[in-house]
Amino acid sequence: MESVSFPPLSRVAVSGGTHGNEMTGVYMVRHLQKEKIDKIGSVSVSTVLSNPRAVEICRRYVETDLNRCFTEALLNSPVTDSSPYELRRAQELNAQIGPKGSKEAVDLLIDIHNTTSNMGLCLILYSIDWLTLHILKYLQSKMASVEVRAIQLDIPIAEAYSLESVGKHGFAIEAGPQPNGVVRADIHNLVKEAVDHIFSWLQEFNSGSTFEGGEVEAYTLVKSIDYPRNPVTGEITAAVHSQLQDNDFKLLQRGNPIFMSFSGETVKYDGEDLYPFFVNECAYYEKKIAFHLARKIKLTLPPIKVTD
Amino acid sequence: MESVSFPPLSRVAVSGGTHGNEMTGVYMVRHLQKEKIDKIGSVSVSTVLSNPRAVEICRRYVETDLNRCFTEALLNSPVTDSSPYELRRAQELNAQIGPKGSKEAVDLLIDIHNTTSNMGLCLILYSIDWLTLHILKYLQSKMASVEVRAIQLDIPIAEAYSLESVGKHGFAIEAGPQPNGVVRADIHNLVKEAVDHIFSWLQEFNSGSTFEGGEVEAYTLVKSIDYPRNPVTGEITAAVHSQLQDNDFKLLQRGNPIFMSFSGETVKYDGEDLYPFFVNECAYYEKKIAFHLARKIKLTLPPIKVTD
Repeated sequence: MESVSFPPLSRVAVSGGTHGNEMTGVYMVRHLQKEKIDKIGSVSVSTVLSNPRAVEICRRYVETDLNRCFTEALLNSPVTDSSPYELRRAQELNAQIGPKGSKEAVDLLIDIHNTTSNMGLCLILYSIDWLTLHILKYLQSKMASVEVRAIQLDIPIAEAYSLESVGKHGFAIEAGPQPNGVVRADIHNLVKEAVDHIFSWLQEFNSGSTFEGGEVEAYTLVKSIDYPRNPVTGEITAAVHSQLQDNDFKLLQRGNPIFMSFSGETVKYDGEDLYPFFVNECAYYEKKIAFHLARKIKLTLPPIKVTD
Repeated sequence: MESVSFPPLSRVAVSGGTHGNEMTGVYMVRHLQKEKIDKIGSVSVSTVLSNPRAVEICRRYVETDLNRCFTEALLNSPVTDSSPYELRRAQELNAQIGPKGSKEAVDLLIDIHNTTSNMGLCLILYSIDWLTLHILKYLQSKMASVEVRAIQLDIPIAEAYSLESVGKHGFAIEAGPQPNGVVRADIHNLVKEAVDHIFSWLQEFNSGSTFEGGEVEAYTLVKSIDYPRNPVTGEITAAVHSQLQDNDFKLLQRGNPIFMSFSGETVKYDGEDLYPFFVNECAYYEKKIAFHLARKIKLTLPPIKVTD
């Protein structure tokens, strides 16, 4: 396979607090800012606390989910004093580290998130980007103690709604399980190790190393399943079953229990074999998602190197 | 040891949602209400969703922590429209299932809570009450799969600030780990099993069984330890160390790591041997508590039975 080349990645943004109660990114960004880290080797680093007002009150957002505000339509919509805070903040961030889709945008944007689901360490990627997939492959080779997974969302970049879509390249790091509002040392260490490896990769890449091609696996979203709910009040009437809870990325097969109602009945899965993820994520109760289901795909990567 | 007798326990209240984002009690109470459960054997049951406004917005409280409002001083303080919602609600609850300290108060109050700490199933008890300690002993004998622990707070009943102090007898059930805003089936099942056993005990007690005396262990609070903080901003500068995280009730000894700073340094424990609990509880960041430390005590119970 012929190798593909990309310009050097000299400007990188690391962001946290896009959701104000996901604490790993909040503390990591605060620490980088306190230490005044603005350059690592050949790479200039911008550190961004994305939603400071939500961080202040330790909630996911103030008025609307910031991480749904980065579509081209929303970034270019007129804002007034009555626009939601997060829409105004999204446009500020786009001016600061974008604009999305322009040559001024940062070369790579790493946005740090947490989940209450037992997802370990995942990268969430838009469409197919050889460069970010090579970073995934590198992390998989370097982090032996943990399985680094990728969730690949098939959304055109203009419609991509999350912060990382503002960079020329970008991904979210999703790490869990961690309750909202809590920082766990194990999760912090996992994300810190990943970020350190990413900066090592960037040094190697910028200095001219060729990264060999190969295969990587990724999970693509097929559909989402809601909790059983009271049709009148909308209240949930069942919990995720203990046999599904904490079993993100374990194959779900027809007949496996997925819910246990509060009166004790088991609800079984009745569909094709798929991989659950974001199982019982706190923030998805309001989005009417008990878990997502994914198919596993294989991607064959070309070798890559920096443009001569 | 001579046996001690108590009047029958004919009126019991089961409450949840005293903290609006601790979901086990919320769903358990809603389910009992939907099923219109108001009597179990010889016992009349009141089900109480303690802080409905906080439940509605899925936060611990709206204006102030409801579970600190049940001292005699606060319950008897004048309220106006500008009093915090929770103070007004505490007085409503006191009128409904109390008044605290009166003969009209429910005989037993069971208040269901969750923690993000790995505390399993605990009863939190005020002072020494042979009756609730007998319920503890019964749960320990019936629930073989889990260690049921007791935390005994040495606070005179007039100054006791939490809801369960409104009943003639009462305790909080504390169950975790469970993130705020999330319901986990395993934790739900654990609490449901405990509540079912408590009602079996109540039937046996009311029908005249004598419960043999014996020894039980309990943990009594010695002191609380805060996170290391930036002296200027008050922001925490370290996470609970991975070797302490999830190790509630495992003896902490001098030299054991307790914190890991975000720059990577370990902080070690420098005090007498004690038992940590509420380790890295979400709601205690604002109360400046990283964990509590307890001493283990042994209590010798007399036999008890219902008054002839």
